[in-house]
Amino acid sequence: MKAEIIAVGSEMLTPFRQDTNSLYLTDKLNQIGVTVAFKSIVGDRRKDLVSAIRTALGRVDILLIMGGLGPTEDDLTREAVAEALSLTLRRDGALVAALHARAASWRIAMPQNNLKQADVIEGATILPNANGSAPGQWLDVAYEGYRKLIALVPGPPSECKPLFDTECLPRLKAVLPPRFIAKRTLRAAMIPESQADKLLAPIYTQYTDVETTILAHAGDIQLHLICGKPTLEAAQARVDELASRMEEALDDWLYSSQGDSLEQIVLYYLGMHQLTLAVAESCTGGLLAQRITAVPGASRSFLGGVVVYSDPLKTTFAGVPPDLIAQYGAVSAPVAEAMASGIRQRTGATLGVGITGIAGPTGGTEGKPVGLVYIAISDPHKTDVLERTFRGDRTRVREWATQQALDLVRKRLM
Amino acid sequence: MKAEIIAVGSEMLTPFRQDTNSLYLTDKLNQIGVTVAFKSIVGDRRKDLVSAIRTALGRVDILLIMGGLGPTEDDLTREAVAEALSLTLRRDGALVAALHARAASWRIAMPQNNLKQADVIEGATILPNANGSAPGQWLDVAYEGYRKLIALVPGPPSECKPLFDTECLPRLKAVLPPRFIAKRTLRAAMIPESQADKLLAPIYTQYTDVETTILAHAGDIQLHLICGKPTLEAAQARVDELASRMEEALDDWLYSSQGDSLEQIVLYYLGMHQLTLAVAESCTGGLLAQRITAVPGASRSFLGGVVVYSDPLKTTFAGVPPDLIAQYGAVSAPVAEAMASGIRQRTGATLGVGITGIAGPTGGTEGKPVGLVYIAISDPHKTDVLERTFRGDRTRVREWATQQALDLVRKRLM
Repeated sequence: MKAEIIAVGSEMLTPFRQDTNSLYLTDKLNQIGVTVAFKSIVGDRRKDLVSAIRTALGRVDILLIMGGLGPTEDDLTREAVAEALSLTLRRDGALVAALHARAASWRIAMPQNNLKQADVIEGATILPNANGSAPGQWLDVAYEGYRKLIALVPGPPSECKPLFDTECLPRLKAVLPPRFIAKRTLRAAMIPESQADKLLAPIYTQYTDVETTILAHAGDIQLHLICGKPTLEAAQARVDELASRMEEALDDWLYSSQGDSLEQIVLYYLGMHQLTLAVAESCTGGLLAQRITAVPGASRSFLGGVVVYSDPLKTTFAGVPPDLIAQYGAVSAPVAEAMASGIRQRTGATLGVGITGIAGPTGGTEGKPVGLVYIAISDPHKTDVLERTFRGDRTRVREWATQQALDLVRKRLM
Repeated sequence: MKAEIIAVGSEMLTPFRQDTNSLYLTDKLNQIGVTVAFKSIVGDRRKDLVSAIRTALGRVDILLIMGGLGPTEDDLTREAVAEALSLTLRRDGALVAALHARAASWRIAMPQNNLKQADVIEGATILPNANGSAPGQWLDVAYEGYRKLIALVPGPPSECKPLFDTECLPRLKAVLPPRFIAKRTLRAAMIPESQADKLLAPIYTQYTDVETTILAHAGDIQLHLICGKPTLEAAQARVDELASRMEEALDDWLYSSQGDSLEQIVLYYLGMHQLTLAVAESCTGGLLAQRITAVPGASRSFLGGVVVYSDPLKTTFAGVPPDLIAQYGAVSAPVAEAMASGIRQRTGATLGVGITGIAGPTGGTEGKPVGLVYIAISDPHKTDVLERTFRGDRTRVREWATQQALDLVRKRLM
C-alpha cells in the first residue's frame, strides 16, 4: 500500500523550519509494509489544503496529515479534510467537556477558539491525545470508489509520535497483510565513500528483497539493511546473510554490526579490557571529549581531557616540553606525540590521545596547510602518530580529526 | 508570485534522508518577493513525477524541480517535465560533445547512459552547471493559458545552490517587480520561550509588513525579521523600527542585534576588553570548550579547558581540594566554585568557568536529581555560582548548561 504524508504549517515553508516528524512516521510505515510515495508540505491556507488533500487521495491509499489541529484561526486541517471529502463537522459534547475540565484544572478561562478542537468530521473516530489538547481523528472512507484510510495527527513531535504509535499503527496493521521486518545497521570508519560503494555494490545489488541505504558523514559510513517478509525468520535470514557478506568485504573498516556509534564501540572495548582513556586536544577544542562523554556511562572508562588551545597550556596540562614546540611548532608530529603520552601520564590513564592541527579557515601556511592534523595515540608500550590532511571547512576538519582519533583508539584496542 | 519546490528522489522518502536544499532556495526566493506555497517530495517514478508536476503547474507560477538530472535510469525529471507539458526532448549536440570531452579528460570511456544528460526539453534554455555533469534547464511556457516559469536544477547541494544563484535568480528577478529585502536577526539567551512571546507578540503583531519568525532551542531564542519593499530604505526602516522596539522589550536577555551566536558575542567581549577565558567541565564533557572553539579565531581569547570527568582529575587539573569533594560531593556549589577559580589560577586566565552536574540518564538521587547543574564563574575579584535544574535528556541538559555558562560569562563582561 502507498501512503502520503502531508505536513501542515506555514512555518515549514520558511527557510528556518523543516518537517522532521515524517522521518519517524516513514520508518514506522515501512516496518508494516507501507511505502511512502509522496510527502507534501502545505501552508495554513484552506484552499491549498483542500487541493493537497484531494491530490493525495487521488494517488495513495493511506493519507497522514500532521498539524493544523490546534485552537487558532490558522488551524484548518479539520475543516479542509471535511471539505475535501464533502463531509460535515460536528461539535463533540464529550470533547467540549474535556476541554472545559482541562481549562478548569489550570484555573484559566477557556478561550472560545479552543472549542474548535472539539470539532469532529462526520464518521471519524476520535484518537485520544495523551500529550496535548487536540485529539487526532481517523477516517476509513470511500473516495471516488476506492477505500482510503486517513489519519489527522497533531504537529508537535511530542504529540504526533506517541499518538501515531498507539492509535494509528494498530489500525493500519489490522487492514494490512501480516509482515515482519528485520533490520541491521552496519557501521564502518574512515573508508572512502567511493571505495565502500565499489566493495559493497556488487554484493547488495544481488539482494533485491533487502533495502540497503548508505549514509556517509565525516569518515563514518552507515549501512541500513531492511527486509520485510511474511515471517520474521525469513526476513532475518536474508538481512543476516547480506550483513555477513558485507562485514567480510568491509574487513576491519567495520566497527559495528549492530548500529552502535564509534564512541560507543570505543567505550565498550575500554570497559571490556578494563582500560581507561584521556585526551589532549588542540584544534578539535573539546569535540573529542564531547563526543565520548555524550555516551551515557562514559565516566566508567573516560577519565577526562584537556583542551590546550594556547601553547603554554600544552605544557601546563599535557607536559609538552616548550623546546619541542619551539623546535617543531605546535602543529607537528612530536608535539602530538608528547600530548598523547603527557596526558596519559598526568591522568594515569591506560591510553592517551593527542590532537593538534589547523582547523582553519585561517592559520595555514605553505608547509602546513589548513586541514593538516596530527593525531597521536599512546599506551604504556608505545606512542604512534598519524599525519592527515582533511578537506572541508573548520567544522568538517574537526569532525574528521575526532573520527580518526576514535578509530585509532579502536584499532589499538582490537 | 507563488512557487512550489519539488524535490525528486526516492532516497528522500526513506527514514534516513531529507531534502535540505529547499531551505536555501526558499530563503533566496523570499528575498525577491516569491512565496513558497508548497513543497513536495516525489520518488523516482515517472508517473508520480508527471502527476506532481501537473499538480504544481495548476497551483503556482514558478516551479523549481531539484534532482533526477543524472545519468541513471532512475533520473527521470527531463522526461517527466516534457511529458507533463506535452513537449519533446532533443539530444543537444554541444552537450554531447561536452560530455565526451569530460570523459576524455578523465581518461574514462563514456557509458552510453551518460548521454541522457544531453537531452533538452523543446524550447528550454540550457543552464550551465559549473560543478557537475548534468546541466539545468529553464522553461518559460504557457500552461493551460497561464505563464509558468520552470527550472530544472541538479539535486546535490554543491551543484544546486550555485546553479540556482547564477542562472535562476537573475531570470526570476527579470520578470518580478523590483523589491528590496531588509533582514535582522535578534538573539536572546535564557529567556523562557513563553515569556519571550508574551513580551514580543504585542509588538511584532503590529508590524504586518515585517515577517517575524521565532526559533527557540535550549535557552537560545532567535528572532528573524524580514521585510520587502520597493526601496531598501523603506524596508530597512521598518525592520530597524521593529528591531529596536523588540530590543528594548528583551532588555538584557538580548545578546545580539545582528544574529551573532552567544559564543561569538562572548569572544567579542573578551577580545574587546583584552581578557582571557578558561573552563573546567565535568558533566558537559567538553561541550562548552567545543562550542567556543567552533568559532574561528577563538584562540585569541580562549586559552583552553579541562574535562575533569573523574574526581581525581578535578584535583589534578582544576586544583579542587579532595576534602571539598568528600564533604559536599562532586556535584555541589563549592566544587563548581573551586573548579572555576582553580582553572582560572592554573591557566592564568582572567575568567574561569566551572560546571558540574548530573546529565543523566542515570546517576540522579532524591537530593540531587538528573538535570541538576552547578555553574560557577570566577574572576580575580569574586566567584559566583548558580544552581539550575534543567529538564530533558542528557543532550538537552548539556546544551542548557553550556548555554547558561556562556550567558554567565556574557553578563560578567557587560
